[in-house]
Amino acid sequence: MSAVAQGFRYRRRVQFSETDLAGIAHFSAYFRFMEEAEHALWREAGLSIGAAEQTGGWPRVAAAFDYKSPLRFEDEFEVTVCIAELTRRSIRYAFTIMHDDMLVGTGTMTAVCTRKENGQLRAIDLPTDVVQRLQAAAGAPATAE
Amino acid sequence: MSAVAQGFRYRRRVQFSETDLAGIAHFSAYFRFMEEAEHALWREAGLSIGAAEQTGGWPRVAAAFDYKSPLRFEDEFEVTVCIAELTRRSIRYAFTIMHDDMLVGTGTMTAVCTRKENGQLRAIDLPTDVVQRLQAAAGAPATAE
Amino acid sequence: MSAVAQGFRYRRRVQFSETDLAGIAHFSAYFRFMEEAEHALWREAGLSIGAAEQTGGWPRVAAAFDYKSPLRFEDEFEVTVCIAELTRRSIRYAFTIMHDDMLVGTGTMTAVCTRKENGQLRAIDLPTDVVQRLQAAAGAPATAE
Amino acid sequence: MSAVAQGFRYRRRVQFSETDLAGIAHFSAYFRFMEEAEHALWREAGLSIGAAEQTGGWPRVAAAFDYKSPLRFEDEFEVTVCIAELTRRSIRYAFTIMHDDMLVGTGTMTAVCTRKENGQLRAIDLPTDVVQRLQAAAGAPATAE
Repeated sequence: MSAVAQGFRYRRRVQFSETDLAGIAHFSAYFRFMEEAEHALWREAGLSIGAAEQTGGWPRVAAAFDYKSPLRFEDEFEVTVCIAELTRRSIRYAFTIMHDDMLVGTGTMTAVCTRKENGQLRAIDLPTDVVQRLQAAAGAPATAE
Repeated sequence: MSAVAQGFRYRRRVQFSETDLAGIAHFSAYFRFMEEAEHALWREAGLSIGAAEQTGGWPRVAAAFDYKSPLRFEDEFEVTVCIAELTRRSIRYAFTIMHDDMLVGTGTMTAVCTRKENGQLRAIDLPTDVVQRLQAAAGAPATAE
Repeated sequence: MSAVAQGFRYRRRVQFSETDLAGIAHFSAYFRFMEEAEHALWREAGLSIGAAEQTGGWPRVAAAFDYKSPLRFEDEFEVTVCIAELTRRSIRYAFTIMHDDMLVGTGTMTAVCTRKENGQLRAIDLPTDVVQRLQAAAGAPATAE
Repeated sequence: MSAVAQGFRYRRRVQFSETDLAGIAHFSAYFRFMEEAEHALWREAGLSIGAAEQTGGWPRVAAAFDYKSPLRFEDEFEVTVCIAELTRRSIRYAFTIMHDDMLVGTGTMTAVCTRKENGQLRAIDLPTDVVQRLQAAAGAPATAE
């Protein structure tokens, strides 16, 4: 199976409010694009990160993006999200954004599984069923440790 | 006392991410500018709308802005906020945005005082002390009914 | 023909970054929702407001929204946009946002047709073909004057 | 001279619209915080990245942030920006965000100097005077190569 076939895909357009005076999508918008794809993956897996927020949540510990070519107003782009790495308490997602055949850029985000205890978030082990559902939805072989 | 002297003033600059491909501040940014001035007024009054959110909150029921001249990247602007009207359960703020001597536009926002009951927000009477503090901070004569 | 059947419809979900600490979509987000529906209407009409920005543009002169019930994370909502009024040089759009059978709110935006002359925007008459295409796409009888 | 003394400092508060349903500043907001500090550094140096956008601009090629502790509504935070690395055609800024004595996180952004030629951006050598002014404003010894 080819690497290209893997990953969950999320598509949408660049909106006017996401452009800046340079005429391209603002560099901070790509972090929202990645998050939207992550949350669409959760929905595909029959999960909602919104429900998780009630009892704890998945705060980010790291996010990064490398920009290759700009997106402009109304460009339709596709974000592919994969599960790049699992540790005991964190998931690292990897993202590729394409605009037709053009590589827009690649990024990563790492989120930690937490539970709320006395108003504080404490890192806990990844729930097995959540991991399995996300892996199935991402169509990716586990890189669990 | 002149009308010009009234109102609480909040100043800041237009940031790059707030511009759009037309080279001006995006029209939705002005609603954030108004809210920032409202919250600065609350702080001036020794209050925080963040604390209020724990037990209820002040959801908006209406917001409007009339645009007169655009703001551009790095323009320093001043938002003046007044308490335009008080009803039993709501506050209507009025805003004027200036850039030096240029009128950028005027707007209004109406917020309702609510309390959380069984997970639902229910409108309640405005707390007298909150109203008095906001009026003092806004330097405005009461238009209470 | 019923009034309900009129207007162009645009659907999407509330994203995580559009919520605030009150747990609902931030009140400024609704202005972006309205604009997205407007631009989707333009695309439906075979037009792009992005192209228009090169030679002039459609700056807003007024925007307003009345909030009836909140939207939450992942809620799917539908924005219906109609052409409410045409003047010689401006279009006023009217918007209704629904979440299933719940009225989220209603709003309006007025945009003026302009041409760039020596770096300044000057209001010009609405191009007839643009108006006709938008009216056809909005499925609405003209309220032209 | 201690490393702590270096860097240009930019302060502001977390605004309501920057929080999300988890009650903290949204992770994408930190990229705007970094950019605001970068642009404040440019102003401190007597420069404006807005003027640069007319003839070319400084598109980002990479941005990253590591999150250590969350920011909440109305928290006052301080971004310290340093020039971490200069290549022939790019500047890499390093950022530290503090909230009182608490480390909020650290990040980097790399921007390339470009000139517009026939509508395309082409990377060019860093202008010497821009580099010198930024270094002086950042109070940092050059790490030029």
